[in-house]
Amino acid sequence: MKEFYIGQLRTDDEIQDFFMVKTIAIKIGSNKKQYLDLFLCDKTGEITGKKWDVSDPELPALNEIADGDFVKVKANVTEWNGMRQLRVQKIRKSVPEDHLELADYIKAAPEKADDMYLFLLEKAEGMTDHDLRSLCVRVLEDNQEKLMYYPAAAKNHHAELSGLLYHVKRMLMTAERVCEVYTNLNKDLVMAGVILHDMEKINEIEADTLGMASGYSFEGQMLGHLIQGIKTIDRLAEELGIGKEKAVMLEHMILSHHYEPEFGSPKKPLFPEAEILHYLDMIDARMYDMHEALESTTEGDFSDRVWTLDNRRLYKPTSF
Amino acid sequence: MKEFYIGQLRTDDEIQDFFMVKTIAIKIGSNKKQYLDLFLCDKTGEITGKKWDVSDPELPALNEIADGDFVKVKANVTEWNGMRQLRVQKIRKSVPEDHLELADYIKAAPEKADDMYLFLLEKAEGMTDHDLRSLCVRVLEDNQEKLMYYPAAAKNHHAELSGLLYHVKRMLMTAERVCEVYTNLNKDLVMAGVILHDMEKINEIEADTLGMASGYSFEGQMLGHLIQGIKTIDRLAEELGIGKEKAVMLEHMILSHHYEPEFGSPKKPLFPEAEILHYLDMIDARMYDMHEALESTTEGDFSDRVWTLDNRRLYKPTSF
Amino acid sequence: MKEFYIGQLRTDDEIQDFFMVKTIAIKIGSNKKQYLDLFLCDKTGEITGKKWDVSDPELPALNEIADGDFVKVKANVTEWNGMRQLRVQKIRKSVPEDHLELADYIKAAPEKADDMYLFLLEKAEGMTDHDLRSLCVRVLEDNQEKLMYYPAAAKNHHAELSGLLYHVKRMLMTAERVCEVYTNLNKDLVMAGVILHDMEKINEIEADTLGMASGYSFEGQMLGHLIQGIKTIDRLAEELGIGKEKAVMLEHMILSHHYEPEFGSPKKPLFPEAEILHYLDMIDARMYDMHEALESTTEGDFSDRVWTLDNRRLYKPTSF
Amino acid sequence: MKEFYIGQLRTDDEIQDFFMVKTIAIKIGSNKKQYLDLFLCDKTGEITGKKWDVSDPELPALNEIADGDFVKVKANVTEWNGMRQLRVQKIRKSVPEDHLELADYIKAAPEKADDMYLFLLEKAEGMTDHDLRSLCVRVLEDNQEKLMYYPAAAKNHHAELSGLLYHVKRMLMTAERVCEVYTNLNKDLVMAGVILHDMEKINEIEADTLGMASGYSFEGQMLGHLIQGIKTIDRLAEELGIGKEKAVMLEHMILSHHYEPEFGSPKKPLFPEAEILHYLDMIDARMYDMHEALESTTEGDFSDRVWTLDNRRLYKPTSF
Amino acid sequence: MKEFYIGQLRTDDEIQDFFMVKTIAIKIGSNKKQYLDLFLCDKTGEITGKKWDVSDPELPALNEIADGDFVKVKANVTEWNGMRQLRVQKIRKSVPEDHLELADYIKAAPEKADDMYLFLLEKAEGMTDHDLRSLCVRVLEDNQEKLMYYPAAAKNHHAELSGLLYHVKRMLMTAERVCEVYTNLNKDLVMAGVILHDMEKINEIEADTLGMASGYSFEGQMLGHLIQGIKTIDRLAEELGIGKEKAVMLEHMILSHHYEPEFGSPKKPLFPEAEILHYLDMIDARMYDMHEALESTTEGDFSDRVWTLDNRRLYKPTSF
Amino acid sequence: MKEFYIGQLRTDDEIQDFFMVKTIAIKIGSNKKQYLDLFLCDKTGEITGKKWDVSDPELPALNEIADGDFVKVKANVTEWNGMRQLRVQKIRKSVPEDHLELADYIKAAPEKADDMYLFLLEKAEGMTDHDLRSLCVRVLEDNQEKLMYYPAAAKNHHAELSGLLYHVKRMLMTAERVCEVYTNLNKDLVMAGVILHDMEKINEIEADTLGMASGYSFEGQMLGHLIQGIKTIDRLAEELGIGKEKAVMLEHMILSHHYEPEFGSPKKPLFPEAEILHYLDMIDARMYDMHEALESTTEGDFSDRVWTLDNRRLYKPTSF
Repeated sequence: MKEFYIGQLRTDDEIQDFFMVKTIAIKIGSNKKQYLDLFLCDKTGEITGKKWDVSDPELPALNEIADGDFVKVKANVTEWNGMRQLRVQKIRKSVPEDHLELADYIKAAPEKADDMYLFLLEKAEGMTDHDLRSLCVRVLEDNQEKLMYYPAAAKNHHAELSGLLYHVKRMLMTAERVCEVYTNLNKDLVMAGVILHDMEKINEIEADTLGMASGYSFEGQMLGHLIQGIKTIDRLAEELGIGKEKAVMLEHMILSHHYEPEFGSPKKPLFPEAEILHYLDMIDARMYDMHEALESTTEGDFSDRVWTLDNRRLYKPTSF
Repeated sequence: MKEFYIGQLRTDDEIQDFFMVKTIAIKIGSNKKQYLDLFLCDKTGEITGKKWDVSDPELPALNEIADGDFVKVKANVTEWNGMRQLRVQKIRKSVPEDHLELADYIKAAPEKADDMYLFLLEKAEGMTDHDLRSLCVRVLEDNQEKLMYYPAAAKNHHAELSGLLYHVKRMLMTAERVCEVYTNLNKDLVMAGVILHDMEKINEIEADTLGMASGYSFEGQMLGHLIQGIKTIDRLAEELGIGKEKAVMLEHMILSHHYEPEFGSPKKPLFPEAEILHYLDMIDARMYDMHEALESTTEGDFSDRVWTLDNRRLYKPTSF
Repeated sequence: MKEFYIGQLRTDDEIQDFFMVKTIAIKIGSNKKQYLDLFLCDKTGEITGKKWDVSDPELPALNEIADGDFVKVKANVTEWNGMRQLRVQKIRKSVPEDHLELADYIKAAPEKADDMYLFLLEKAEGMTDHDLRSLCVRVLEDNQEKLMYYPAAAKNHHAELSGLLYHVKRMLMTAERVCEVYTNLNKDLVMAGVILHDMEKINEIEADTLGMASGYSFEGQMLGHLIQGIKTIDRLAEELGIGKEKAVMLEHMILSHHYEPEFGSPKKPLFPEAEILHYLDMIDARMYDMHEALESTTEGDFSDRVWTLDNRRLYKPTSF
Repeated sequence: MKEFYIGQLRTDDEIQDFFMVKTIAIKIGSNKKQYLDLFLCDKTGEITGKKWDVSDPELPALNEIADGDFVKVKANVTEWNGMRQLRVQKIRKSVPEDHLELADYIKAAPEKADDMYLFLLEKAEGMTDHDLRSLCVRVLEDNQEKLMYYPAAAKNHHAELSGLLYHVKRMLMTAERVCEVYTNLNKDLVMAGVILHDMEKINEIEADTLGMASGYSFEGQMLGHLIQGIKTIDRLAEELGIGKEKAVMLEHMILSHHYEPEFGSPKKPLFPEAEILHYLDMIDARMYDMHEALESTTEGDFSDRVWTLDNRRLYKPTSF
Repeated sequence: MKEFYIGQLRTDDEIQDFFMVKTIAIKIGSNKKQYLDLFLCDKTGEITGKKWDVSDPELPALNEIADGDFVKVKANVTEWNGMRQLRVQKIRKSVPEDHLELADYIKAAPEKADDMYLFLLEKAEGMTDHDLRSLCVRVLEDNQEKLMYYPAAAKNHHAELSGLLYHVKRMLMTAERVCEVYTNLNKDLVMAGVILHDMEKINEIEADTLGMASGYSFEGQMLGHLIQGIKTIDRLAEELGIGKEKAVMLEHMILSHHYEPEFGSPKKPLFPEAEILHYLDMIDARMYDMHEALESTTEGDFSDRVWTLDNRRLYKPTSF
Repeated sequence: MKEFYIGQLRTDDEIQDFFMVKTIAIKIGSNKKQYLDLFLCDKTGEITGKKWDVSDPELPALNEIADGDFVKVKANVTEWNGMRQLRVQKIRKSVPEDHLELADYIKAAPEKADDMYLFLLEKAEGMTDHDLRSLCVRVLEDNQEKLMYYPAAAKNHHAELSGLLYHVKRMLMTAERVCEVYTNLNKDLVMAGVILHDMEKINEIEADTLGMASGYSFEGQMLGHLIQGIKTIDRLAEELGIGKEKAVMLEHMILSHHYEPEFGSPKKPLFPEAEILHYLDMIDARMYDMHEALESTTEGDFSDRVWTLDNRRLYKPTSF
């Protein structure tokens, strides 16, 4: 249905298509005329738009459009300060008859939330250790609703609809395989660490049901998801009668999984399962960011600088 | 009663006095003869001692002496590799009739534990804020027994009998006065932060009733007293019905009071009372360490290097 | 008299009031018409203003207005790129009959400069140590004129009229109180350190009599106020016949009060009075910055990021 | 056959068994008598030994014993400065009839070198990419002889007989599995990176056929195995006719696999296969070090500090 | 011939002169009218220019002007956001009859490329060591063509026509003199290090024959000129039959000449000639940057912040 | 005359020669017998010595020997813990008839102090700038006596008799030559900076007339030679009527010559002469340390780790 995706727009294109409105405002320019200032998005990216010289009769219809709405737009793609921009000729709010697919407009994990949730639940239910199993199942059930849509970050890696589920799922997949090689690892403990490590992002980040983060919660800013996670395990462990050693080891896994003090972990991992948790987390974040950066890169060329990768520019080869 | 204190011994002194035994062992020297190897202490310091060529008839009496006992010793002060050492001629275990004062042998805070505890309790009971008052009183009562003797550190500042009480008391004294100058500070919140900030050292450090630390607990190593403190407040706040904002702010004060990630605080203080808590803590630690280093320094001279002060050598002036 | 303060302006307000001109210029827009570009301030903040389409007959009056003048302005508050801006309709230079209060336009310490100066002088005159007393009184008298208005910084904490006096006064208040708790400190030495530590900011920063800094002096850039302060003490100590130990200790206090090499102190404090000077300085700077950031923050909300506090966003509680 | 292993010796044990001699020397003690000074090892650790008061008639036999020989020793386990030590009563050089198993004395990888080599070769031969296949097979064949015994480090992780083979083998096992999860990775490129990344340790470290490193080579100190590896690939790629893009990407993988400049990598990974190589390397090193540290730790206790793990003390749980 | 140089333009100047076009484009303003957007340069700097309200009949001539062309411009110097800008009234493309001197428009080293190249070649040919001589002569001859114009950097020091030659020449001059003082240095080795150290910038940076860099090559980004230089020496040393010690020492000089890992050198210099190479390089870079920054600074004043000098502002004295 | 130098002694040598006594003491061993404990030196190094089982009749003669005396010793070279040691058989104090050359025992600069001093003075007197000339001559004359023997450091580079003179002389030699290449440098200013930069080491370090440092002075520890140097220039500039710009620039050169805050410079060089001063200082220190480390290294081998060179091991080539 949707024909023009923001990620693919090129300067001088003439387009007509639907977009989601991130922000919309009537402003007055330096020539003292009013114009429409837009910030639009779809699942592939974001772009600003301007409709110059808005006349008074147009205002009522424009005032109907709010942040989060969908609009149909006829526009030219221009360039301003090295950034693409839409010079809008026509704009109208979408109506139900437009039959838009939400998935076209929202950046989302590539798998269905239900399937991913079930994958996590199965892994939890398949644990041999009774304590870890009951704790993981409980935490998954307690957070099921929000897990369906929560992103794994406010920005950066997995900042997308169901990004948290996708992040945990892929880490579980790798975790299982790494335990085949390093057989001294307690697989249940690794899997439990993976399931629990970022769960409190649900209470640290404030996000809507489209997986879009608007900021951080009060407790998130004051304590952060590592400390919040420890508090949750502390309470649940008492409720479920889990022994102190197991509870504290899980709390330690959460506390140490960022590894470095400057990234939020005051303790370094003190047993192999805590150590491997950190690397599983790093691998998934880096593979995500690199994959995304290379998707919009031409073969034989370097990507734009990627902020989350220390401003590296990644290379996409031609011979592989 | 006690005449010779370890801190004042000089090479070539001949002494006869009581000391506490930190460790004692019979060993065999490179000349294949057995000798007695001692590590003795009193409230002013520590010293090694050797009794050479121990004969078999001496053994039964020596075997009666255990770590932690008190002994009477006749010895010469010698020097070995730049360290003073006792060449012991006679040694016997102390008996009740020796009427030793424990306080002569144990490094201790300069005030009575009971008085200091009461000072803390009065400050807690004097708080206007009902929630903070009930929480602080509760925590003080819950920990009263161990507070009486706990040191504030395994080594370094306030590693002494009742050192934790003394540390908190002096911080409270300064806190009250600083709130007179910076009147925008909520005094109850500052005082509560001071009372709570290090309380879980009681469960992080393992110490005996003489205030001597033997190491760190399992939970202490896995989480540390900041995280342990947050868990305690989390549970007590729920039990006492304290609102979330207050509880989380107190937890944040504990989490942030070491200020820098590399010293264990993943968050920096986010309100003035948390900020001032850090400085009150620093000032008390630094004044303690500096006072101690200068006590054994001659006027017009520099102290030995002080490890806790980045190896600085402190100066003791002659004209002040 | 003044009704509209910049700190309180909200978008869409219509206002009419006096402001101080930081900069004023006639410019030519991309539509080739001339407009008036203004940067205005009062004691609560700063704002840009534009008067579009300036006609030639207006020019003579506008050309009379210079940087530092006061103007009466009729304007609408608009928003541009997330910043508030004034769309000016009318503007005229103020006349004596407007009876403006300078204090409404200049950010200033909350106490009278005379009172603060007297407070410092009394503390200096009350010192027991003859050398420190004569040195401090001399330095205060030598710098009296500039002290009345000098800020304590070019920007950041205490960058305001008489900010330096206010900074020193509050530090002295805290210093006296801390010496009650840590009785081993030489109070005269601490107080002298406080009075002298930043005095050469007067010769490092270039500021006008409104306490507004325009930059750094030649010697300030080449040496900085720590080194400049040492040179001053070196000369005065010789003139006043102060012994070498005292002079060098004071010089060391100034040299070490920034504590870390990367903040300008090549030596760390080597005696307790130098150590406490650093913390008194830190506390006053931090309490000032935090108080200011929270003044314009709503209860239950976080402030904007504060650059001088490592970009922290401070929290203003509802329950305290 | 061997009964007493150094790793298990406890003070006061009386033992009689064979050990390998790391160093042996006749020395003269402070009592002016000659004694035998030994440094012995087996596959579980190292220990010093002393035989006091060596008489002249003993010397000819003792002089026959050289570094690297095996000896039979009768001794008591004593303690000296907190370290265990052997007080030797009898010592003789081993003879062929003692039928010693070299494997009892040499720390070695837990798998047979031949099997591991074949595993690597199979993986290389199974590559789809012709260039990578021919390069990897060639490098494996060129280095086959030394690969059989080379350690992966002079000390630290995998400093053992065939340690390099074992390190690469386990990385290949994990690499294959990670490529199942992150399907955008080019598996051949990852596997080739693993096979090549440390190969030049063979020319950086100087080691004997027992896998014991004696130091670093001239070129190893001047350039290091990363740069040496690049030079090798540069020459082989030319010889095998491998295109520039592939060759440079492999060189980049080697150059960047230590990730941080301070660990020897001037460039960070610029494509996902280079990124994952770093994590595969880290995981294997960390799992090795942690496994080893915990092997000699009691359940419910912490290990000694591990230098290669930032002096962490690892925990061995009781409930898992 | 050329009268107005960009480095000397002051606001409100009216000028008429030739400039080189870095970029040129027709754009549409917020008033929906087309305008000409220019970025012009000469050997003293760069400036933007705008020609407002371009009419359709002007377009054919304007469209003839391409990046890299020379234009004659009549314009006013205005100021926009603190930057000087040209308001263009007339513009035409230059014709051969204008007889422009390329040197007026291109930033270039102050000496002739031929002379500098000969200087280098003479130094190489004057070496006593046969191996170093043949290697240096060969490398100079292999790179002669590009050496004539290559800059020594993409930006920063010596980013100018023939900048690489000039950088090497001045380093050679200093190297000879330093070897007179430190007579234990092997002069041939120092001189060879200087000639070779940056040679592969020719293959790391992509630059045109005017010495203007457009970016970095594939191999430059993947490996960098240090590693590229090692590869080159490795191949040439084999071809020329230079012994391993000499070849590896030269490779080490190149590898270590940035000195710190974070600047690209995984090894620090391990012999005096490698050490001095680093300092010769630093001195030349710093003298260049400082000289350039002070050229446009008034006596008694400070320069703008210089990015390559840690944002220092340099001082130009009046009394020297 | 002297036959055996400490730097060349090998284990098992039997020697008889003179040495200087750094420390001497009678001690009692663990076998309860007295022995003589010696620490001896000559210009090539230091070594410990033991004379076992000292009998009472020997004591009067031994007691005559004091620290700093010269002794004749007959001894065997033994090894203890990897360090060479002398087992002394005979020892006697030297007498005038032994005709010892002080230079054999004291580490010293390779040139005569008088010559070096004259070199410095000539350079000062040859300055064109009257102010710099009079200041430098004055400082050289004021410090002439101590300059004759002062080392340039307490340990590390130039810690030797007249080391400070030698350090300054070689820097002046390089400075002159560098000014030939970088002709924009003011040579007088560079030369003055070199002469003055370390002069206050004379008042920072406490050293005897043999150039051996015993520690740091009170003012040296409190302020350091950079600050001390600024104070001296400040006073002399006033006395000699040198203008403020010149005085402050010289003070800045001294303040900034360590370059990095963590090495004691709160400001970085702000003009080229200050910048070059830093590099001249670095080069001379590094060339000195490297030359010394390589003197005792065999060709084709690496030196011991050099602490002042970040623990590098330097290489001494065979083919140069």
